[in-house]
Amino acid sequence: MAGKKAVILLSGGIDSATTLAIARSEGFKCYALTFEYGQRHHREIESAKKVAQSLAVAVQIPPTYVPARNTIFLSYALAWAEVLGAFDIFIGVNTTDYSGYPDCRAEFIAAFEKTANLATAAAVQGRGQYRINTPIIDMTKAQIILTGTSLGVDYSLTHSCYDPDEQGGSCGRCDSCRLRLKGFDEAGLKDPIEYRISNDE
Amino acid sequence: MAGKKAVILLSGGIDSATTLAIARSEGFKCYALTFEYGQRHHREIESAKKVAQSLAVAVQIPPTYVPARNTIFLSYALAWAEVLGAFDIFIGVNTTDYSGYPDCRAEFIAAFEKTANLATAAAVQGRGQYRINTPIIDMTKAQIILTGTSLGVDYSLTHSCYDPDEQGGSCGRCDSCRLRLKGFDEAGLKDPIEYRISNDE
Repeated sequence: MAGKKAVILLSGGIDSATTLAIARSEGFKCYALTFEYGQRHHREIESAKKVAQSLAVAVQIPPTYVPARNTIFLSYALAWAEVLGAFDIFIGVNTTDYSGYPDCRAEFIAAFEKTANLATAAAVQGRGQYRINTPIIDMTKAQIILTGTSLGVDYSLTHSCYDPDEQGGSCGRCDSCRLRLKGFDEAGLKDPIEYRISNDE
Repeated sequence: MAGKKAVILLSGGIDSATTLAIARSEGFKCYALTFEYGQRHHREIESAKKVAQSLAVAVQIPPTYVPARNTIFLSYALAWAEVLGAFDIFIGVNTTDYSGYPDCRAEFIAAFEKTANLATAAAVQGRGQYRINTPIIDMTKAQIILTGTSLGVDYSLTHSCYDPDEQGGSCGRCDSCRLRLKGFDEAGLKDPIEYRISNDE
């Protein structure tokens, strides 16, 4: 137990300050997480910082830039859907070509969908049920490209390279470029983007 | 179905461009959601915008400031916990004093916890199970204040007012101030913060 870490959501109010104190009293090494957002008074953030300092715990206010995580992305999508009055969220997760991303699996998507339907007033009050749609989850890259082509997607506008040059040109060598090129090849189509090395290399 | 809205997660790559095309082909009015984050090439964001424009759909890149939603907040906490190697997340949700917040209920918390354990490599690979701890969920405000006081929380540092003045002073009249004052009163303690109106009014 000693030195076991915990993340504590801290607003600067009574409830979260007490929660932080409880976590600390249980022996956790505490990391306090505070959010700055529009309708919040700056006074609250200052309080959160002071509460964290008074209990000698680390505090983090995350920057705009966050690691790519489908849980966070879907949470934002859910927030926007609720504001819009939308009940359908679409995400292009795909399990065929990649492996090892837990948050691309159907099982994760189903759990998030259930969470969404417990998280929001619209769902709880029966105005609708959120659906997380994953239409390409079981397709190969070639099937994806053929489907999109039949629907009019202009793949010259898309980008896949992990290592683009200064002009945004694709390398043709990284894992993502190779997967893309293989997909076009298997689909019997020519990739419309330019590569720094020849596509035929 | 006509005019039914959907939110689409759009990265600028092949998979999400195809997913957007599928959603549109199913008759949804599409709203594309794109994220800017650290390790992402600006080229990808430009691609996402171009893809959205080419399919004539609205695109939104959310600002830092977001509505207060426990789903989003817990997602960030999960991300940070994974980076830290922590498996415990604490959140001061409370169902006694408030009502009508679906994402404060134990049922929502349990669903998020399940999602977290499906979302992350650490959990899926058996290195640990995430726990969302809610130690004050069933306490009254008075119980919260008594607990925190016994643990050394300095409530003079905390803030509750929805309508603070320019110096950050509390109004004493808004719902949040009234709930706070009632909590201290029932706990038999004096609220240590100053109010613009008398506490005894």
